Amino acid sequence: MDRVFNFAAGPATIAESVLEKAQKELVVYQDKGMSVMEMSHRSAMYIDIYNETVALLKDLMKIPDNYKIMFLQGGATLQFSAVPMNLMGENGKADYVDSGNFAHLAAVEAQKYGQVNIVASSRDDNYTYVPDVDAIQWNQDAAYAYITTNNTIYGTRFPKIPETGNVPLIADMSSNILSEEYDVSKFGMIFAGAQKNIGPAGVCVVIVREDLLGKELPYTPKLMSWALQAKNDSMLNTPNTYGIYMAKLGFEWLRDLGGVAAINKINVEKAQILYDYIDESKLFKSPVKAECRSLMNVPFVTGDADKDAAFIKYCTKNGLVNIKGHRNVGGMRASIYNAMPVEGVKKLVEVMKAFEKENA
Amino acid sequence: MDRVFNFAAGPATIAESVLEKAQKELVVYQDKGMSVMEMSHRSAMYIDIYNETVALLKDLMKIPDNYKIMFLQGGATLQFSAVPMNLMGENGKADYVDSGNFAHLAAVEAQKYGQVNIVASSRDDNYTYVPDVDAIQWNQDAAYAYITTNNTIYGTRFPKIPETGNVPLIADMSSNILSEEYDVSKFGMIFAGAQKNIGPAGVCVVIVREDLLGKELPYTPKLMSWALQAKNDSMLNTPNTYGIYMAKLGFEWLRDLGGVAAINKINVEKAQILYDYIDESKLFKSPVKAECRSLMNVPFVTGDADKDAAFIKYCTKNGLVNIKGHRNVGGMRASIYNAMPVEGVKKLVEVMKAFEKENA
Repeated sequence: MDRVFNFAAGPATIAESVLEKAQKELVVYQDKGMSVMEMSHRSAMYIDIYNETVALLKDLMKIPDNYKIMFLQGGATLQFSAVPMNLMGENGKADYVDSGNFAHLAAVEAQKYGQVNIVASSRDDNYTYVPDVDAIQWNQDAAYAYITTNNTIYGTRFPKIPETGNVPLIADMSSNILSEEYDVSKFGMIFAGAQKNIGPAGVCVVIVREDLLGKELPYTPKLMSWALQAKNDSMLNTPNTYGIYMAKLGFEWLRDLGGVAAINKINVEKAQILYDYIDESKLFKSPVKAECRSLMNVPFVTGDADKDAAFIKYCTKNGLVNIKGHRNVGGMRASIYNAMPVEGVKKLVEVMKAFEKENA
Repeated sequence: MDRVFNFAAGPATIAESVLEKAQKELVVYQDKGMSVMEMSHRSAMYIDIYNETVALLKDLMKIPDNYKIMFLQGGATLQFSAVPMNLMGENGKADYVDSGNFAHLAAVEAQKYGQVNIVASSRDDNYTYVPDVDAIQWNQDAAYAYITTNNTIYGTRFPKIPETGNVPLIADMSSNILSEEYDVSKFGMIFAGAQKNIGPAGVCVVIVREDLLGKELPYTPKLMSWALQAKNDSMLNTPNTYGIYMAKLGFEWLRDLGGVAAINKINVEKAQILYDYIDESKLFKSPVKAECRSLMNVPFVTGDADKDAAFIKYCTKNGLVNIKGHRNVGGMRASIYNAMPVEGVKKLVEVMKAFEKENA
């Protein structure tokens, strides 16, 4: 069976060469006589894999030495709780930018643990843009300021990272980590579920500036304490050992491709191909303000539910799958993460053109 | 490279046929054009995998209809917090049996959320036995009573499940789930990290009686709410999709082998072979009281640290790995979970005999 082009928003497509490498060594890893899945997380052979994974991410993102890097369970959603549980203790309040569904869910969850100030929101406009960060009044007494760098469902992206002064900036980068260069030193903490730009689901990358460790609220579950996890190299208990290994293969693939700057060029090219066609199309249009468009998630609509459905079917017939949009936006969404090859996007545009012609 | 016999306590050995099946369909699953790792957790193809996994476990453990089955992240350790967070709200106190390291850690964690009564403990005797459950005075006003059916580090097992009256019995079955038959209806809630008897790390099986849902403490992270997870079929957020698929392959392997009763016979046979030799050996001895011996984890010692070290080396040379005991017990530990073949145990005894002869 041939592989399809998979435009799912996450879990998402993984580079074929990464899957092939995993396949090759699935039953027996190198000369170890066992699968990575069977390795004790305390064994030297697994610790080597873990340390290489951390080192690769540190290099790829140029993470400064005063940050701890962890690979935790529970996805971004557990971090929606962990962020306030680890930081809200300071003074009980935090600023959130409500720029999409997951930003909204994070803010709602944080209200359990302290006072949440929504300092800007595009919710009333169905999140078709990201609020202008220069116009935001950040509270200088907040424990932290929270943004979502890329909004998966709505296909928007912060064109600019805000300056929040002494207040640590926390970022959910789940859907665009490693897709473009960020200056990590501008952030207090970054987290990202793996299942979009890193590897399979079940791993969440957590990067925390060391001075922010150790401020947990008293009822924080010990597994959610960043300080304890950092001290134990993500192994307070058994981590998702195989998921971390898959992340390592993904990081190696990205490194060999030239790293984040190199993939960003490709991502810009891919997005350009798609947005250029959408902008010239008479059938498809983008619901997103041009300056806020995501490089990773590209929603587009015809404005006619029957035509949308017909187009989605047409795509499936042509080997392009998971193109259906999220119910909050409707229409279609093409998620074109790092592992989506340029050919996948070119094929999509071809298919869109053919469909438009047939339905003119 | 040949495969070794891996006696690790977890992550642990997985049946070779399970690994081979996973390998075969790693890059492309059946006729789906993608890896299981790349499937949207909301897609029909993945929901099928998930539902089959649940149905298999329900059959294998004969789980009654009034229990919810979930496959969550965070391992047993997150459940150490989730148990009190989901149940302690009732009346703020719970009974714990302190029968080993993980039971102890669970009790310590629960103290964050309410009053913990240690109703029995073998801690002062380095957990060489499990307290007699018939001698325990259970508090009838406790929110729940907590046991650990098998103690991984110390190699002990509850020979009998306690009667706790109307107080729901909670069991950490991480290291012996599916290794012997349990009457699930005697328990309020059962949980087990996957990495011993189920599959790779990163998945925790949670089985909860429906009437116990919905009692969360107000600051419970939403991902840790059993009620929310049950309502969302473990998909409040993206679960460890690949880990769940691997659990499914493991369950199919166990079903094809004849189920829990069939594997229990094999487990009894394996344990017998090993304990019989230990009991007749002049070199090796078991630190555990005979009536509490585990079928899954078999610690044994020579009483001489140099000899222990020499034996561990000797094992490695003979393709038997991860036989070193936990530092709390010293000596050796052979974890012989469901997936450890009888030949592995026979080989171990052969090697023990040869070593004893050479070192007489």
